Amino acid sequence: MAKLWQTSGNLAKDIEEFTVGEDYLLDQKLVKFDCKASIAHAKMLLKMGILSSEEFGSLAKALSEIIALEGRGKFTVKQEDEDCHTAIENHLTKYLGDLGKKIHTARSRNDQVLAALRLFEREQIFATLQSILALIKGLKKTASVSSIMPGYTHMRKAMPSSVKLWATAFIEAMEDDVQIMEFSKKIINKNPLGTGAGYGLPLEVDKETTRAELAFGENFMSPISAQNSRLKYESIILHGLSLIMGDLNKLASDLLLFTMPEFGFFSLPDELATGSSIMPQKKNPDVLELIRGKYSVVAGFETQVKILMANLPSGYHRDFQLSKGPVMKSFAATQECLKMMIRVINALIINKKNLEKSCTSELFATQKAYALVKKGMPFREAYRKIKENS
Amino acid sequence: MAKLWQTSGNLAKDIEEFTVGEDYLLDQKLVKFDCKASIAHAKMLLKMGILSSEEFGSLAKALSEIIALEGRGKFTVKQEDEDCHTAIENHLTKYLGDLGKKIHTARSRNDQVLAALRLFEREQIFATLQSILALIKGLKKTASVSSIMPGYTHMRKAMPSSVKLWATAFIEAMEDDVQIMEFSKKIINKNPLGTGAGYGLPLEVDKETTRAELAFGENFMSPISAQNSRLKYESIILHGLSLIMGDLNKLASDLLLFTMPEFGFFSLPDELATGSSIMPQKKNPDVLELIRGKYSVVAGFETQVKILMANLPSGYHRDFQLSKGPVMKSFAATQECLKMMIRVINALIINKKNLEKSCTSELFATQKAYALVKKGMPFREAYRKIKENS
Amino acid sequence: MAKLWQTSGNLAKDIEEFTVGEDYLLDQKLVKFDCKASIAHAKMLLKMGILSSEEFGSLAKALSEIIALEGRGKFTVKQEDEDCHTAIENHLTKYLGDLGKKIHTARSRNDQVLAALRLFEREQIFATLQSILALIKGLKKTASVSSIMPGYTHMRKAMPSSVKLWATAFIEAMEDDVQIMEFSKKIINKNPLGTGAGYGLPLEVDKETTRAELAFGENFMSPISAQNSRLKYESIILHGLSLIMGDLNKLASDLLLFTMPEFGFFSLPDELATGSSIMPQKKNPDVLELIRGKYSVVAGFETQVKILMANLPSGYHRDFQLSKGPVMKSFAATQECLKMMIRVINALIINKKNLEKSCTSELFATQKAYALVKKGMPFREAYRKIKENS
Amino acid sequence: MAKLWQTSGNLAKDIEEFTVGEDYLLDQKLVKFDCKASIAHAKMLLKMGILSSEEFGSLAKALSEIIALEGRGKFTVKQEDEDCHTAIENHLTKYLGDLGKKIHTARSRNDQVLAALRLFEREQIFATLQSILALIKGLKKTASVSSIMPGYTHMRKAMPSSVKLWATAFIEAMEDDVQIMEFSKKIINKNPLGTGAGYGLPLEVDKETTRAELAFGENFMSPISAQNSRLKYESIILHGLSLIMGDLNKLASDLLLFTMPEFGFFSLPDELATGSSIMPQKKNPDVLELIRGKYSVVAGFETQVKILMANLPSGYHRDFQLSKGPVMKSFAATQECLKMMIRVINALIINKKNLEKSCTSELFATQKAYALVKKGMPFREAYRKIKENS
Repeated sequence: MAKLWQTSGNLAKDIEEFTVGEDYLLDQKLVKFDCKASIAHAKMLLKMGILSSEEFGSLAKALSEIIALEGRGKFTVKQEDEDCHTAIENHLTKYLGDLGKKIHTARSRNDQVLAALRLFEREQIFATLQSILALIKGLKKTASVSSIMPGYTHMRKAMPSSVKLWATAFIEAMEDDVQIMEFSKKIINKNPLGTGAGYGLPLEVDKETTRAELAFGENFMSPISAQNSRLKYESIILHGLSLIMGDLNKLASDLLLFTMPEFGFFSLPDELATGSSIMPQKKNPDVLELIRGKYSVVAGFETQVKILMANLPSGYHRDFQLSKGPVMKSFAATQECLKMMIRVINALIINKKNLEKSCTSELFATQKAYALVKKGMPFREAYRKIKENS
Repeated sequence: MAKLWQTSGNLAKDIEEFTVGEDYLLDQKLVKFDCKASIAHAKMLLKMGILSSEEFGSLAKALSEIIALEGRGKFTVKQEDEDCHTAIENHLTKYLGDLGKKIHTARSRNDQVLAALRLFEREQIFATLQSILALIKGLKKTASVSSIMPGYTHMRKAMPSSVKLWATAFIEAMEDDVQIMEFSKKIINKNPLGTGAGYGLPLEVDKETTRAELAFGENFMSPISAQNSRLKYESIILHGLSLIMGDLNKLASDLLLFTMPEFGFFSLPDELATGSSIMPQKKNPDVLELIRGKYSVVAGFETQVKILMANLPSGYHRDFQLSKGPVMKSFAATQECLKMMIRVINALIINKKNLEKSCTSELFATQKAYALVKKGMPFREAYRKIKENS
Repeated sequence: MAKLWQTSGNLAKDIEEFTVGEDYLLDQKLVKFDCKASIAHAKMLLKMGILSSEEFGSLAKALSEIIALEGRGKFTVKQEDEDCHTAIENHLTKYLGDLGKKIHTARSRNDQVLAALRLFEREQIFATLQSILALIKGLKKTASVSSIMPGYTHMRKAMPSSVKLWATAFIEAMEDDVQIMEFSKKIINKNPLGTGAGYGLPLEVDKETTRAELAFGENFMSPISAQNSRLKYESIILHGLSLIMGDLNKLASDLLLFTMPEFGFFSLPDELATGSSIMPQKKNPDVLELIRGKYSVVAGFETQVKILMANLPSGYHRDFQLSKGPVMKSFAATQECLKMMIRVINALIINKKNLEKSCTSELFATQKAYALVKKGMPFREAYRKIKENS
Repeated sequence: MAKLWQTSGNLAKDIEEFTVGEDYLLDQKLVKFDCKASIAHAKMLLKMGILSSEEFGSLAKALSEIIALEGRGKFTVKQEDEDCHTAIENHLTKYLGDLGKKIHTARSRNDQVLAALRLFEREQIFATLQSILALIKGLKKTASVSSIMPGYTHMRKAMPSSVKLWATAFIEAMEDDVQIMEFSKKIINKNPLGTGAGYGLPLEVDKETTRAELAFGENFMSPISAQNSRLKYESIILHGLSLIMGDLNKLASDLLLFTMPEFGFFSLPDELATGSSIMPQKKNPDVLELIRGKYSVVAGFETQVKILMANLPSGYHRDFQLSKGPVMKSFAATQECLKMMIRVINALIINKKNLEKSCTSELFATQKAYALVKKGMPFREAYRKIKENS
């Protein structure tokens, strides 16, 4: 199978498999974005006079067809294709002959890969935002429940709280996450096309056309920045996702604790619980445990990318390829955990009686001290007085 | 020494030392901020009628004096004080008697600690931004040097680049970092005062007064959010700092490579190089190696805080205290590395002759292919033609 | 499809898919080991009188058949099976009826899963050791090449070294790794069978039989230890693998530097280099870059598991399942990188002329100083003398 | 102040402070070990005829005096000394004149630093082992308490367990840790002396003398290995410490949960609990929270060192210096947490009544199912029967 960089020599089979890795599988998700970026690139070549109107039309049509095929599961990137970019170029060449090769004028695989990746990331951030908003909606319903609830510090009862305050804290956390993801989208939304292999191109290219076509916010000032942004921008995304997962981890930790029969504040319905192979009585909160655990998956991927970038000089390195998996898998994990948490929150049973019963007198010690304060006693004295009597 | 939470019983000495840890040392940097937050808190107590004008005046004066004392190195937090908050309250009580105790009305140590910490963080972000801007200024001077330079991909000569493109890439990276730090400041700039131990207070407090006094952007919707924001907001800061350090790491890696005599693109003046105890000829770039290495310090601290927050339910936990060191040390490391890099960039010797000499013919292979393209040959064919002749 | 823990109620479809995750795919590699452990367990049930000789014979035969089927790619764990354990039990029940169910007597899925996993890990450690030994063999051939080579400190020429010293350093590193992996195998080689869900079983079981059958080194003292060893033992394995990858990372970093034409100490043959889609002249060392980069994959997975285990109390948690992927993928990555490095080392071209040419005079400054020492000058003085003249 | 590598030029003051960092503070702990290694080195110089008996005697005496001075707090490494090695050589030169300089014959600062560091690490491993053994002793007393206790899986009551099984699990974990630390000691116990800056020395040295004097297990085969072992060996140590901290984290997590009044299985005496500044009733388990949290400190330091070593070629780099802090701080944190846990375990109050009361009927469901099994019912059927009735 022809490679974009085919040499007369031959890369050994095992070496090829090693360098391709799982890319051909991951790249399935990039097909759509590579085609879109290629159409924008072709439009630029048209403007530059490198493609005729007719040639542009044929290329745009063929690329749109690939998008449609892929949507129906009929365009599969194979291991021998190496990646989606070669698969697409081979397809174009098969149907359009030399014209299929012409699309690679004025670009390198480095800017091509990056353009597809950033478009993918932008769409995934959008999808993640939708899931966060749906979870916020669910939490707002929970926050509307009127019930007292014990507040804990140091894992010990502290002061009276409420279901409203508790749920609102997670709404607020999620609203921070919305801002963080939107900011991340803004930062990464730069146009890699026209930066070539990272040092520009030996002919004048019209980056403004591809930027506008693909709705990128701006162009890079230096072509070197495009490749130097790799891993850094990906770590920004992974950090944002790890924060979302951190919030879900805390919410799951609360729910795992407060659904213990020893607390009984909340319950999960049976359809959200699994059984045990040896203990007939068990109803296990596996869903919550896996949401909790997946924080480590995303945070671990962030660390992975931060190790990957250490001590690398400027310019493209093949090591960059290894960030594709962590980014794709972290988006998938975060979105599926958000969806599962929406399911849990919407189905959560709130046991008001248990919540009330658990609000025992020691929770009100601070209130008692402040009652003395209102009568004129300095707080430190009131504190000691209540302490001695407790 | 009296503790804010003193009980009649006594914490064992070794236990106390363990729980205090290095806090009393770190807290030296928080004295100023705790006093400022306390003045704002006192102003609120004044508005609420808990303090008289006279009492407020005495407290504000005493707190301002502590700030001044600390500035002259005359206010030291001791191990037996436990932390700066107790040291300050003990000082107030010593000089103002019962009035010194009254300041703790309507707050908990939890919101007090957090207020001081967030004010500290805000100031440190500001200081970090100043250093970034100074480095950008230095890099702009470098970018104004007109010289060709080889561009590398895969650690192999790729295409011609220039000192301008190279330096501009780091300017652009630093400009991203400016945005990231400013966004981080906006996110963390919320008012913890009035949230008590994390569940509000048993009396109505006027959070708007403290918010405005301390120039916080907004109040938390739920008091629980204040404590739940701990570690999360700190990890946002650490992430931003790790990105700056990542950029410095790449810049240092470039300089370590390109100052090798085998390249000779750049040189460091003698006052930036150290010697060897055994090899008389050596001039070692320790400064650059330490800047490079300190990326791992900050990225490692980010991971530390991300492990710390795993699987903790809502509410305050003493574990949170362990994020103070990582945050303070990461700010210090980042700022000192920025300053060292400014020194390096301002003193960097650019060896134009070597840069030109290293731009050997293979760097221009792509340009040669495109020359054929301009004559009408499809790029893929031109590529193969040049390849065969190289 | 029946689950080992089937309840009358039904887990929702999306919840089931979420909880299964990629387990059904990963578990394909565990089929063999689960069958082996089940045969040992059946032998114990035979000894205990729970199975008759005939029953044991049927079960052992059916389980051996599954191993054979799987070896020929004819036994596939499907998503609706959930995991290999259910797939195997369903298979047994289909062919052996009630007898198939009887095998689950005196065990829980918790000890069953763990037994298969530990047998898998033990085999993988063995396979990793074979690859390390093959690399050592290759390095020994390199070490037999007689050639001077510059030794670097601080990325600056320091003192004369040799290809022999250089290659021997990696042999020595790999020999440490052999010891580390063998020690890891010894630590993890304990028998989980008989520990049930982590609290033993309500009937006396003969753990010594399963231990001896499966060649485990010892039994756990407390059944709780079996589940508490999860993540810990896996992190021991991941740490060992990350050390191997760290050594490969250093070797790859050396080779990436020393194969740069600016050094030219070594070269890679064409069949180990890839080309560029835009630059006709390029021969890129992608294989070495990916080996270098995969250090971060394994080190990142170690961190992932270390985050996963934070703050979890004793006993089984579903979160544990998330360590299966990191362990399996890290073994695969390490073994494939070892194999690729063997390919590289065996094909490496050593350019003696360049090595000699690069041993310029400053490398010998220390030797010159010691020549003066031998004539009676104190070293510090000799050092200064040579320094002044250099 | 004279530096071991003093040049005629002068390193700028701010650069010097940056490169020294906190080394002069950390190095206080290395003084003793540097002196011991220097005495062994001097003995070798004596054997080699470089030092006379008299000279050796003077040096050994002066070095022993430094050890004694340091033990009484009278030998302080100052910032202008840079590190302990210079401080010691300056002291020797001050008292012994030229003889003080002669000690640096046949060594480099690189092997000198490493020798002191490894001796320190070896002693610290020994001290850590003593603390582990003391904790095991405490846990054995706990394990001798006869009481039932509920066993949990998925944070839900699962099957009956006992205080004995629970405590024994931690004894077993600690016994693994003993093996791991002992193995780590064996791996790192190699003699760095004689490897110079990492490429040997220009004169024949008798490494066997220093090895035997300092009780190192073996010499390195290649001098390059000594410097390449840096960060790798340190990460082995940090990994071992992180495993110990992981076990303490689990034990603390159990205790934090089981001392909650909602469980009441265990209690802490007052002298191990702290109060709250706002809530008079609180008794907080800060000690346990800090032990739990310090797992992240050590695990984070391990990650730090693993990032630090990424992508560095062979040979000494100044970056290595940055591992000194993580290693020293992790030893200190682990030992102090072990000591605190010994305090907690020895003082732990076991509430048998609550333990018994919490062993409610559902815990015995598996036992009931097995009672049916003993009467001849297949386990799967018994399981379903009990499930239906629960």
